[in-house]
Amino acid sequence: MKPILVLNGPNLNILGQRQPEVYGFDTLADVEALCARTAEALGHKAVCRQSNREYELIDWIHEARQTAAAIVINPGAFSHTSIAILDALNAFDGPVIEVHISNIHRRESFRHHSYVSARAEAVIAGAGIQGYEFAILRAAHLLAG
Amino acid sequence: MKPILVLNGPNLNILGQRQPEVYGFDTLADVEALCARTAEALGHKAVCRQSNREYELIDWIHEARQTAAAIVINPGAFSHTSIAILDALNAFDGPVIEVHISNIHRRESFRHHSYVSARAEAVIAGAGIQGYEFAILRAAHLLAG
Amino acid sequence: MKPILVLNGPNLNILGQRQPEVYGFDTLADVEALCARTAEALGHKAVCRQSNREYELIDWIHEARQTAAAIVINPGAFSHTSIAILDALNAFDGPVIEVHISNIHRRESFRHHSYVSARAEAVIAGAGIQGYEFAILRAAHLLAG
Amino acid sequence: MKPILVLNGPNLNILGQRQPEVYGFDTLADVEALCARTAEALGHKAVCRQSNREYELIDWIHEARQTAAAIVINPGAFSHTSIAILDALNAFDGPVIEVHISNIHRRESFRHHSYVSARAEAVIAGAGIQGYEFAILRAAHLLAG
Amino acid sequence: MKPILVLNGPNLNILGQRQPEVYGFDTLADVEALCARTAEALGHKAVCRQSNREYELIDWIHEARQTAAAIVINPGAFSHTSIAILDALNAFDGPVIEVHISNIHRRESFRHHSYVSARAEAVIAGAGIQGYEFAILRAAHLLAG
Amino acid sequence: MKPILVLNGPNLNILGQRQPEVYGFDTLADVEALCARTAEALGHKAVCRQSNREYELIDWIHEARQTAAAIVINPGAFSHTSIAILDALNAFDGPVIEVHISNIHRRESFRHHSYVSARAEAVIAGAGIQGYEFAILRAAHLLAG
Amino acid sequence: MKPILVLNGPNLNILGQRQPEVYGFDTLADVEALCARTAEALGHKAVCRQSNREYELIDWIHEARQTAAAIVINPGAFSHTSIAILDALNAFDGPVIEVHISNIHRRESFRHHSYVSARAEAVIAGAGIQGYEFAILRAAHLLAG
Amino acid sequence: MKPILVLNGPNLNILGQRQPEVYGFDTLADVEALCARTAEALGHKAVCRQSNREYELIDWIHEARQTAAAIVINPGAFSHTSIAILDALNAFDGPVIEVHISNIHRRESFRHHSYVSARAEAVIAGAGIQGYEFAILRAAHLLAG
Amino acid sequence: MKPILVLNGPNLNILGQRQPEVYGFDTLADVEALCARTAEALGHKAVCRQSNREYELIDWIHEARQTAAAIVINPGAFSHTSIAILDALNAFDGPVIEVHISNIHRRESFRHHSYVSARAEAVIAGAGIQGYEFAILRAAHLLAG
Amino acid sequence: MKPILVLNGPNLNILGQRQPEVYGFDTLADVEALCARTAEALGHKAVCRQSNREYELIDWIHEARQTAAAIVINPGAFSHTSIAILDALNAFDGPVIEVHISNIHRRESFRHHSYVSARAEAVIAGAGIQGYEFAILRAAHLLAG
Amino acid sequence: MKPILVLNGPNLNILGQRQPEVYGFDTLADVEALCARTAEALGHKAVCRQSNREYELIDWIHEARQTAAAIVINPGAFSHTSIAILDALNAFDGPVIEVHISNIHRRESFRHHSYVSARAEAVIAGAGIQGYEFAILRAAHLLAG
Amino acid sequence: MKPILVLNGPNLNILGQRQPEVYGFDTLADVEALCARTAEALGHKAVCRQSNREYELIDWIHEARQTAAAIVINPGAFSHTSIAILDALNAFDGPVIEVHISNIHRRESFRHHSYVSARAEAVIAGAGIQGYEFAILRAAHLLAG
Repeated sequence: MKPILVLNGPNLNILGQRQPEVYGFDTLADVEALCARTAEALGHKAVCRQSNREYELIDWIHEARQTAAAIVINPGAFSHTSIAILDALNAFDGPVIEVHISNIHRRESFRHHSYVSARAEAVIAGAGIQGYEFAILRAAHLLAG
Repeated sequence: MKPILVLNGPNLNILGQRQPEVYGFDTLADVEALCARTAEALGHKAVCRQSNREYELIDWIHEARQTAAAIVINPGAFSHTSIAILDALNAFDGPVIEVHISNIHRRESFRHHSYVSARAEAVIAGAGIQGYEFAILRAAHLLAG
Repeated sequence: MKPILVLNGPNLNILGQRQPEVYGFDTLADVEALCARTAEALGHKAVCRQSNREYELIDWIHEARQTAAAIVINPGAFSHTSIAILDALNAFDGPVIEVHISNIHRRESFRHHSYVSARAEAVIAGAGIQGYEFAILRAAHLLAG
Repeated sequence: MKPILVLNGPNLNILGQRQPEVYGFDTLADVEALCARTAEALGHKAVCRQSNREYELIDWIHEARQTAAAIVINPGAFSHTSIAILDALNAFDGPVIEVHISNIHRRESFRHHSYVSARAEAVIAGAGIQGYEFAILRAAHLLAG
Repeated sequence: MKPILVLNGPNLNILGQRQPEVYGFDTLADVEALCARTAEALGHKAVCRQSNREYELIDWIHEARQTAAAIVINPGAFSHTSIAILDALNAFDGPVIEVHISNIHRRESFRHHSYVSARAEAVIAGAGIQGYEFAILRAAHLLAG
Repeated sequence: MKPILVLNGPNLNILGQRQPEVYGFDTLADVEALCARTAEALGHKAVCRQSNREYELIDWIHEARQTAAAIVINPGAFSHTSIAILDALNAFDGPVIEVHISNIHRRESFRHHSYVSARAEAVIAGAGIQGYEFAILRAAHLLAG
Repeated sequence: MKPILVLNGPNLNILGQRQPEVYGFDTLADVEALCARTAEALGHKAVCRQSNREYELIDWIHEARQTAAAIVINPGAFSHTSIAILDALNAFDGPVIEVHISNIHRRESFRHHSYVSARAEAVIAGAGIQGYEFAILRAAHLLAG
Repeated sequence: MKPILVLNGPNLNILGQRQPEVYGFDTLADVEALCARTAEALGHKAVCRQSNREYELIDWIHEARQTAAAIVINPGAFSHTSIAILDALNAFDGPVIEVHISNIHRRESFRHHSYVSARAEAVIAGAGIQGYEFAILRAAHLLAG
Repeated sequence: MKPILVLNGPNLNILGQRQPEVYGFDTLADVEALCARTAEALGHKAVCRQSNREYELIDWIHEARQTAAAIVINPGAFSHTSIAILDALNAFDGPVIEVHISNIHRRESFRHHSYVSARAEAVIAGAGIQGYEFAILRAAHLLAG
Repeated sequence: MKPILVLNGPNLNILGQRQPEVYGFDTLADVEALCARTAEALGHKAVCRQSNREYELIDWIHEARQTAAAIVINPGAFSHTSIAILDALNAFDGPVIEVHISNIHRRESFRHHSYVSARAEAVIAGAGIQGYEFAILRAAHLLAG
Repeated sequence: MKPILVLNGPNLNILGQRQPEVYGFDTLADVEALCARTAEALGHKAVCRQSNREYELIDWIHEARQTAAAIVINPGAFSHTSIAILDALNAFDGPVIEVHISNIHRRESFRHHSYVSARAEAVIAGAGIQGYEFAILRAAHLLAG
Repeated sequence: MKPILVLNGPNLNILGQRQPEVYGFDTLADVEALCARTAEALGHKAVCRQSNREYELIDWIHEARQTAAAIVINPGAFSHTSIAILDALNAFDGPVIEVHISNIHRRESFRHHSYVSARAEAVIAGAGIQGYEFAILRAAHLLAG
């Protein structure tokens, strides 16, 4: 079976050092280990990628059309500004689960809207890095369904 | 330890019969059994309540100030209209996790905003009834923290 | 055949005494008698309910899923604020006809929008209590169709 | 007694052929026959006119100041754009009843507002061509009052 | 002479415990005692009611049409959402004074608008529970006028 | 020298009979006589036209490109809705003076904006039919300039 | 008979030097001479004042309650920002005519709205300083009426 | 095969003379000759009509339901204001191609929205009269498809 | 102890003569006497000032930083337009109570927002001149606290 | 003569596979072959580039300042979000033609606005890949002009 | 050579005492000394004025038309509300540099827009009183240019 | 001491050639030389980078967390669209100074808002390349503080 692709967008490479009062002290490595562990426990494989480059996220989503069963994505700031990522996801057929570490609805109003939410099956916000665990669980559930 | 209070708002009593293409075929009983099971597995207890009555939800939240450790709430349509429920939750000190069965961001624009999200620690939308499982997991995690 | 359920929302219990320059001098009893008479003349039965309680309207709509062929509803002020009633109506399969005694489009701008109109087959506003007669006629017509 | 003027606006001449999933299969002739029949049954006379020309509707409303007791009007698309028709109706003293065959509130948002509703005594939308029957009934009722 | 009805809306039953940095440490009992005392000093009687139930507030306002000379009301969160309460107050003939314990204009923008203010003779916000005293004084003044 | 074209738009043919509390008791004939008299006193000629037809106003403006020195126009309700008339006026080279009998800024908000004002040299509102006199005076002044 | 008060607001003291491509080359002295001449020809007297001070305009309007029959006012930039001047004019009983030298509707959008227009009987914009002549004529006409 | 109907709206009769810096020096005759030539080269026939009358455009679209294979339309200013033309086009089954000579997106903001675009298969703006050539080409392509 | 400064803004000097149906028949002298009397009864002193000059109000607020214990202010029309007064009040440390004689929420929408409310501890509107009495009482209460 | 640069933005590399119900079955290779063929037939050369990288599009536009005679661009999702591409195009002197394969005005509202349209000479939307042909034709026409 | 006029608006007279967490501890005297020193070092002279009076700022700007080479202005709260100051600056021919001590874009949204910015050559915000130094430097640079 | 990082965003590589009427004739090399010179004079070092790539700016800001004392940034068009850059800057602890060569407040409205301004200590717009000099001065001042 194809793996679950876990995509993290801009600034998530410095997770754990960046505004920990908002994002916590866990690092991207912690996130990716958690995803791998969660997927494995469900009989899946998680392939994790992070980029600050919009085009790289787009390219990975394009590749995922052939190589991934589902996408778990935390688009970071691109959630609010990138229609190009939305369009790439619209061209992907499997489940898409959107994750935000912080509760974006308690922050600045420009963070309340996500283009990706118009495509995602589910949106999980504010559950910290545990949100990725839930996303993997949901993706696995949908793939099983 | 105090239990986790699981609140379901208006129209969730007919879950499973109501627009299944939106909400699925699981019933409220299924939701509550899932919550109980999930909580128990984590060493917690889930107390489940549903009401179509805004005041009853408010009253239960008030009681929860003494009797519950955390609140998992699917406010249904009240998410978008009830400042009174927000105010009640503002008077509660423990974790609050908001759940929506459907992805409200893919539906009518008046469903995109939730007053409760301004108070909730986390918001989970579109994960079907599995969202409740995640919410219990998150509540337990926060209580453990 | 199942009866037509006629629902009246908040403040309609004091119809006839309340701002008669807006709502006229007919009472709720007059409305209900008119509905009964109109339905009977068409070979139908009208069951009439009024409540100031949003939940009671919701509960009655839920019951109507089993017990009524059509719903005629004047949601009063809830027209403009209750997504919960809209959701309940969305779970009802038969015809829904919305009635307003006054022409809400000639009044304050917050009365110009009705959530219920997004579900109702027909909307009749400003025809006084005769609007209920038309609503029954329309419901009967649709049931016959 | 002066007759009731029934006015139909643009595109209603092709009623029955035009988007029947929205407007149904009844034709303008059916509408006008229904109006005539309904009026007659009430001891009134209905004079029916249709035009795609805004000015013709205006001119007919001006004439109606001398020659008609009431106006039933389906302004079609002019509902949403013609202040000139509103102004003409503002110069008419008798009852004005507005009819829309479809429920304009369930369609594109630009159809939700009607200038004519600011003048009409009553507005009936979504009752199909039966809406004209109700409008004649209401006009007769008001003329009797 | 008929008494002054003092109505308190949702969440005011937990006044004193609820966000004291916003609402202070006085309790509902303190409010009601203050109202009684103030009214008595002016030769009036205050009848105090609190409810988290919108319908109960509506019902009490309906009753007040026969039984009360004036209404002092703190609608709590319903200020911002309940047109039904506004409609009930519109059916009441005596003075209506609106009270808010906190200065709603210094809080979230959704608290800046109150439907009740469109009906109330006076609006007092941010004077703590002393606002009730002022409201009784004003009601008495208007009744004397 | 070419005459000054005086154009009156929809519903101005019934001036004097139409809502006299808004528009006064002077008739279109009075307006046209006043224009003729005023123009003559200034050594000009006024040619007056009224139409309820948008296209006729457009056609007259097109002709005016050859035959008129200036245009005085009261577009009536078309002020607020007709970009086509604005476009026609944009193709006219001489002075354009806009007149409204009533003060449109004290009426419904949809009357506050006029497309024609984006082209007119001057706008006169609320001066009754004397506004036409001022418009002729201004046109003559500009032609003299 | 009391004179007509002609008020000019901020920056009109430098008329003729200030952006002549917008306001022309006539000076305030020209404006005041024109007003005096026009009033005299009609058997009236014009008293002219200019100020860059909002309070002075307010004070003069207050005085005008006793000493002036009508007010002609070009509020300049205060048109768009001063509710205090509107309030002062609301306390004046005679005719108020508003003048703008330029056509404010062809300029920045913040110049399209004037608070004073909500009080003025007539508004004249874009007629250059001739607008004052028209305003005096209109004021005299209203005083004669 | 039925011809392609080419419709031009208001003010296009004076094309070439009207604001040539916006619309160029080509005339309507040039446009129509170009359309005829282009259609012929593709084995089609172009029937060209121009009107300043909204109703005439509507009537021609109605007729086209029987007599035309496709419609190429430059609705001129009616693009932005006529829901009636949109409704007429909604009743036409063949391809509709919308043309604007100027790039409406570089002009006033009220020209940025076209009701017709909600119905047209393609929209071509700013290509001068060559846009008609493209429209005929596209219509022919769709008819061939 | 420092006195309470009572500030009245523009047009309040003509209170009692100005639109008495809105503001009543009490004069500024009545207001100031009431303030003095109320303060005295509470062991305070009221110093009263009125100005139509925004700068004078600012200057007095600046002085109050040294000389006053609290400020009671009815900013009149400046409530809605003066950020400069807000800024001055932001530099004052004692209690600020805002008073409006009329209920500004029942009037034009531009009166619904007050910049001063963002700084004031309490806002009292629609209680007539009694509102000043309440404001003094509240200021005294806060000073006592 | 310098070639015509044809730029395609994000997600157009998967054209033909991506949502064919929206974008059709033609591939990017088909688009580029069509452009080459069309240009050649007109005595021009088309140089085609596609990128999912905003910066690459910017860099190519910068280079085009020296190396291209005109730009045909389908900015894809960047149309709606990239001011940086607009700025780059603003630094290019030759003709710019904007192409969209689908009719963006019939899709989500966030696709209705294109920053690039503020710079492009012409905009062609909804003509499928034929739109590129038209764009080359238009560019050639302008270069010839 | 004419001096550089440095204007400070309302509340800047209490700089250093007023909300030092926002504006710092430097006083107006410090600002003016800094301006004098900076100008002198550049071979210029700075003339400094402060006023809480809008009219005084207007008058000084008018005088500056004869007496100053450039204007450095911190309009304080008038930035956001005074079109009259904008109009005065529009009548000044030399460079205008706008200064704000705090970064207005990080404060309340009503501080984000400045009318003066539509006229100023440069805007410097958040650089503390050093902003004045930069403004003098820029003005000198422009005067030298 | 760590250097000051000077970042320039998209299109600034062609500064001097690009719309010189807006941005002037100075080149990026001039800007960078000016920054170096200014920094050196203050005992600092300026490290200058330019990129059209959003991710490169983000990466450089991330690196700056270890290697730079302050950031001077002209984000170009990304100011208005990049929340990702804002987020990166939010993770940087030192001073951030924002520079725009042109006065963005006198240009298209979409240039009036900058996400970066929500993070920057100071914003300098319209001072040409001298703005960078001021930014270095300010950064040095803050570092000294």
